[in-house]
Amino acid sequence: MTLSKYVTCFFIFLFLCFYSSISASEEKGEITPDLPLSPQTKTCIACHNNFTPGIVQDWLTSRHSKVTPAEAFEKSPLEKRFSAESLPKESAHYRVGCYECHSLNADTHKDSFEHLGRRIHVVVTPEDCKTCHPEEVKQFSGSKKANAYKILMDNPVYRSLVNTVTGLRVMKDRKITAEIPSESTLRETCLGCHGTKVEANNLKTVTTKIGDIQVPDLTNWPNQGVGRINPDGSRGACTACHPRHGFLIEVARKPYTCGQCHHEPDVPAWDVYEESKHGNLYSSEGHTWNFTNVPWQAGKDFRSPTCAVCHNSLLVSPTGDVIAERSHDFGSRLWVRLFGLIYSTPQTKSGDTTIIRNKDGLPLPVTFTGEPASGYLIDKVEQEKRLAAFSKICNNCHSTQWIQGHFAKLDKTIEETNAMVLTTTRLMLDAWDHKLADNTNPFDESLEMMWIRQWLFYTNSIRYASAMTGAPDYTTFQNGWWSLNENLRQMKDWMDFKKDKMDKEEKEKEKD
Amino acid sequence: MTLSKYVTCFFIFLFLCFYSSISASEEKGEITPDLPLSPQTKTCIACHNNFTPGIVQDWLTSRHSKVTPAEAFEKSPLEKRFSAESLPKESAHYRVGCYECHSLNADTHKDSFEHLGRRIHVVVTPEDCKTCHPEEVKQFSGSKKANAYKILMDNPVYRSLVNTVTGLRVMKDRKITAEIPSESTLRETCLGCHGTKVEANNLKTVTTKIGDIQVPDLTNWPNQGVGRINPDGSRGACTACHPRHGFLIEVARKPYTCGQCHHEPDVPAWDVYEESKHGNLYSSEGHTWNFTNVPWQAGKDFRSPTCAVCHNSLLVSPTGDVIAERSHDFGSRLWVRLFGLIYSTPQTKSGDTTIIRNKDGLPLPVTFTGEPASGYLIDKVEQEKRLAAFSKICNNCHSTQWIQGHFAKLDKTIEETNAMVLTTTRLMLDAWDHKLADNTNPFDESLEMMWIRQWLFYTNSIRYASAMTGAPDYTTFQNGWWSLNENLRQMKDWMDFKKDKMDKEEKEKEKD
Amino acid sequence: MTLSKYVTCFFIFLFLCFYSSISASEEKGEITPDLPLSPQTKTCIACHNNFTPGIVQDWLTSRHSKVTPAEAFEKSPLEKRFSAESLPKESAHYRVGCYECHSLNADTHKDSFEHLGRRIHVVVTPEDCKTCHPEEVKQFSGSKKANAYKILMDNPVYRSLVNTVTGLRVMKDRKITAEIPSESTLRETCLGCHGTKVEANNLKTVTTKIGDIQVPDLTNWPNQGVGRINPDGSRGACTACHPRHGFLIEVARKPYTCGQCHHEPDVPAWDVYEESKHGNLYSSEGHTWNFTNVPWQAGKDFRSPTCAVCHNSLLVSPTGDVIAERSHDFGSRLWVRLFGLIYSTPQTKSGDTTIIRNKDGLPLPVTFTGEPASGYLIDKVEQEKRLAAFSKICNNCHSTQWIQGHFAKLDKTIEETNAMVLTTTRLMLDAWDHKLADNTNPFDESLEMMWIRQWLFYTNSIRYASAMTGAPDYTTFQNGWWSLNENLRQMKDWMDFKKDKMDKEEKEKEKD
Repeated sequence: MTLSKYVTCFFIFLFLCFYSSISASEEKGEITPDLPLSPQTKTCIACHNNFTPGIVQDWLTSRHSKVTPAEAFEKSPLEKRFSAESLPKESAHYRVGCYECHSLNADTHKDSFEHLGRRIHVVVTPEDCKTCHPEEVKQFSGSKKANAYKILMDNPVYRSLVNTVTGLRVMKDRKITAEIPSESTLRETCLGCHGTKVEANNLKTVTTKIGDIQVPDLTNWPNQGVGRINPDGSRGACTACHPRHGFLIEVARKPYTCGQCHHEPDVPAWDVYEESKHGNLYSSEGHTWNFTNVPWQAGKDFRSPTCAVCHNSLLVSPTGDVIAERSHDFGSRLWVRLFGLIYSTPQTKSGDTTIIRNKDGLPLPVTFTGEPASGYLIDKVEQEKRLAAFSKICNNCHSTQWIQGHFAKLDKTIEETNAMVLTTTRLMLDAWDHKLADNTNPFDESLEMMWIRQWLFYTNSIRYASAMTGAPDYTTFQNGWWSLNENLRQMKDWMDFKKDKMDKEEKEKEKD
Repeated sequence: MTLSKYVTCFFIFLFLCFYSSISASEEKGEITPDLPLSPQTKTCIACHNNFTPGIVQDWLTSRHSKVTPAEAFEKSPLEKRFSAESLPKESAHYRVGCYECHSLNADTHKDSFEHLGRRIHVVVTPEDCKTCHPEEVKQFSGSKKANAYKILMDNPVYRSLVNTVTGLRVMKDRKITAEIPSESTLRETCLGCHGTKVEANNLKTVTTKIGDIQVPDLTNWPNQGVGRINPDGSRGACTACHPRHGFLIEVARKPYTCGQCHHEPDVPAWDVYEESKHGNLYSSEGHTWNFTNVPWQAGKDFRSPTCAVCHNSLLVSPTGDVIAERSHDFGSRLWVRLFGLIYSTPQTKSGDTTIIRNKDGLPLPVTFTGEPASGYLIDKVEQEKRLAAFSKICNNCHSTQWIQGHFAKLDKTIEETNAMVLTTTRLMLDAWDHKLADNTNPFDESLEMMWIRQWLFYTNSIRYASAMTGAPDYTTFQNGWWSLNENLRQMKDWMDFKKDKMDKEEKEKEKD
Repeated sequence: MTLSKYVTCFFIFLFLCFYSSISASEEKGEITPDLPLSPQTKTCIACHNNFTPGIVQDWLTSRHSKVTPAEAFEKSPLEKRFSAESLPKESAHYRVGCYECHSLNADTHKDSFEHLGRRIHVVVTPEDCKTCHPEEVKQFSGSKKANAYKILMDNPVYRSLVNTVTGLRVMKDRKITAEIPSESTLRETCLGCHGTKVEANNLKTVTTKIGDIQVPDLTNWPNQGVGRINPDGSRGACTACHPRHGFLIEVARKPYTCGQCHHEPDVPAWDVYEESKHGNLYSSEGHTWNFTNVPWQAGKDFRSPTCAVCHNSLLVSPTGDVIAERSHDFGSRLWVRLFGLIYSTPQTKSGDTTIIRNKDGLPLPVTFTGEPASGYLIDKVEQEKRLAAFSKICNNCHSTQWIQGHFAKLDKTIEETNAMVLTTTRLMLDAWDHKLADNTNPFDESLEMMWIRQWLFYTNSIRYASAMTGAPDYTTFQNGWWSLNENLRQMKDWMDFKKDKMDKEEKEKEKD
């Protein structure tokens, strides 16, 4: 072997070492001085790499740590994840580090504070993300998700349900009384998903590893609920689905993220998906799929849908044609609302459902006897338009006849489950009429809770399973028709026993 | 560096490019003209690559797209997945594409139709698969799975249960009446797993991306239930476990496939497996195992069983000895039927359980008081033969004493859970005797549904958990002994309250 | 190209072949004669490679099969998994094979027996593992886990609960009587997790593939419950979490292992984790993490905790500083016991909770009305010390304010759920006072089982979900506040109906 070959080998070796050291330097959090980071971010990292090193490591897996806005801007339209029309002035040529997000819009951030010489805020909000992702924020802002806090807490009917379900019960003098739920309990029950109201109060002192520091005193914090009210007055937490500080699209595209909130018994989307054929294929083959490509190629990057495929991702066919545009308004592709409150209806026109008034004057999309508040719901034409667009996604792998057969079945299921709720509601109304139950609060007695089970757990379960090709247990024995019918029968029995008891009490009175 | 080295490098580079382009051409769906596909399949793909590209992509992951029958035929006996004794004449040297399956046996296919110049059918059936896989179809045809539609819908007792569980309830004049379940609901409840009856009616027009086309109007479609009745008169859907159009053995061997139907609360095989030590090892280490090798090497390809290992795969030891033959009759390795209807019994002799008549004349494997219809069940000798053969699988990783201790425990559990069902049934009979419930329909009253819970949910749960080494929650609190005893106590209470009510009504009458 | 280059290429090729064959030879179970195995182990393997080949294959994946004690001894302190101060004399330079474990401490092993010329035992125990891992065994021995059999079976209150929950019911003369649960049922219910008492009786003959052999007749075997009583008198089964014979740290660090026992409805740690943000990140990204590195680097090896991270693993920061020491006393990092018996309390001082006596003289950490047996529980100072140490783990990825906000919420949740149990208990006491239920056995009536649900299922579920950042369904509708309040209401109804019935019976008596 000649010397030259050794030299060649040596250079190849050197290059490999160098190459691996480049990637290693980022992976290992040994951020080298030549990385294009802003001076502010460099100082953040210098400290936080010691004090909260996991945050830095997590960020190093993010796209934010690898691409500058200027580079993102140059991507082709379909590959582009940066949707602003112009670059942020100050940070265009820096990778998106700590300071780039945590310093934005200081004026509107009531949680903005002086932190070791820099003015920053804790709670990064959609208003901040908007700097580079205005399209996504715009779509999201009109969605029910962005309004998730409001539509639950500012609707007196739902608020009453929330209070009844989660309020502590106390026993005094042999009587049980219900208390209003604490903020703490709301934060980890309903508002765990819907989001809390985070307000910034005065500064408080926190003792940390580097000593005492001053931070704004945040209410109901931490919380990453999707409809969070933020200290800058904005609504929403992008981090509900894009968890800090990796913000990996892979996480948002996998079903576990959605499953955190869309979980049995009330919204069993995750449970149904897991048991369905689509979920089976994901679980069995998903490890060979690509969850990071943008745009996402149906049939190549994935061979069965996850939640994101049907509900919001930008999809292209293997030949590059757009199948569906990206949307962060998660109801916008849907023509029907499966989630029965208390019946399934067409999707609402507005993401803010507190504006609805049904014929009974209640802020609900239907009356108790099932009449829809049609003025607030999308019409037949819009429904059909959305169904046609949605079907294009299915059409990637299924014939037109298949898709039509599938959705015709769903229509019938909605009709039948609505009929079943009506039967139960009539029984409930009968009980209220005959004073077997008291409708002052329609949610707090045993019989009423059995009625709630019908529309909040069982018909929802059946509809989700019907919509998602499979999961026959969720239509049958696992919160399905079995439960609907068993529970209805038990309601009847309860009413019979109660009536018997009341009759007796009546007679006792007569005797006296 | 001499020129020759550059040349060498260049050729290596070229080869790598070429090599990657070969695999890429298939993976990317750029089916090259030189692939050995039939002319018919080539025309299918030419269109469907645009109109349902996901199907083509999916097929490109299949073995069908990579091997011709002639090549498959040459494999060694243990590696062979092609079980016919001779090659299909027309397609022996073509890879198995669209037309090779969708054109078979046109004469018997009532769903055969003219599609853009070719005669094809939509529903590929076991009769079609039999062309290359006759052994598998033969085994399957004798199984309870192939008879899954029949044994549910043609058994009047079970049919009555189905109707009671899934039928809509309607309220008229303050009375609740039960309706017969719709075909649509049956399709997504019981028949979601058991399979529907798919019949081909006249052609109908469907508007697709290429305009209006004529297709046969199929009833109860789509459906991939394992016992589906097909338009060619055959029973079964291979696609229940080998989903189209990848047909990956990896999918069938992973537990998610079985879990689609074998799911809590009635058949909690999946749930129990997931919580068991075997399931834990699969979840923790499974990513390093090989799910595609044929034959499947115990200890090398996998280190803990999935469902397929124990129930149907061809297994060999690390030294290549056959541990268990492949079987597509999924009950054939089993000596006992855990699934209590209404007691656990030995496996049935025939996969068609509608032929059974017990001492009470009912088509059930036991009487209500537990006496088995022994003539229809395998005998002690056959049971022991099967247990011995099954134990060989366990013996791969467990000592003989271990296995015996395990199955002795299972025997005791079957005995005790059967005793528990007997206790409950006696209580039920007592209620019927004393008119606390009405046995005209033994499945529709609250008390009867509580009785069903005992044998359909709770004892099943305990038995599956006992059989599958672990999952102690499924024997205890999650539908286990806790539920059995709590539910029994509630039955007793219900009967007491009911009796009290009836006594009172009796007295009222006397007074009048 | 000159000849020399071909030669170079050829040697590179040869080296690669050779290298792969080395690893292959072990992976394929072709154990080569030059492996440093003891002569005894070699003879074990010679047979067992044919008779239980999966065990050998499994062992070949273990660290035991790859490293000798002498090599393990040389590791740096943080990398070291061998904790003895000196090497085992006989086996220091052999890899840890069959004989090295199965022959230890023959004198104390009542299950020691002559097996084809060697004295071995079946049940390897913590006393055996202690030879190389004394630190781990010491920590474990003081834990509640090691005492899991004792604290359940030797505490008369819990023993009564066990018997009531799992005992068979028999009906005679229209009366239902409860039987004591069989050993077999206990083995697969409570003792499936808590561990059985395994005793070695006389030898018995077992017919195996090699003919009849003599083995000790072991009671309640097989069982791998974590608190198993072993034939050598020791407590515990390391194999509960380190399953034989791979003993992979990867398995112990993944959440499925813990999930086998910590599963809903009573200890829903696994279910809550799966639905939480931490669990979501594990499920979504975990495939890219490193589960085998010792020490385990937070932020590098993993980016979200599994159970082991918070509860017992040795953790270092990306810069190599120790964040938490390894512990096999799984309660030692915890300041509070979420698992309500019947209220949540500070952690117990001793792992043996049978020594506790509360003010009512019962071996429970609280009285029925919630007064803690403080003398047996860690004090405020210790609680705060543990919280501070635990917070260091969170601090890796979360700010101090975040952590404080999180644990303040948990404190409030413990307070509220305890209050809810108190309300229910008062109702229960009222029922006992008024003879609506009979407290001779406080666990066996319908009303009592409803009371148990409150503290064993529902408040536990809420507390676990509160502690583990997320899983809002487990605080709300899935065994959460919904269930607490619905169940409480049903208890009240039951008491009303029962009182009504008793009043009537009273009057009947008066009449007579």
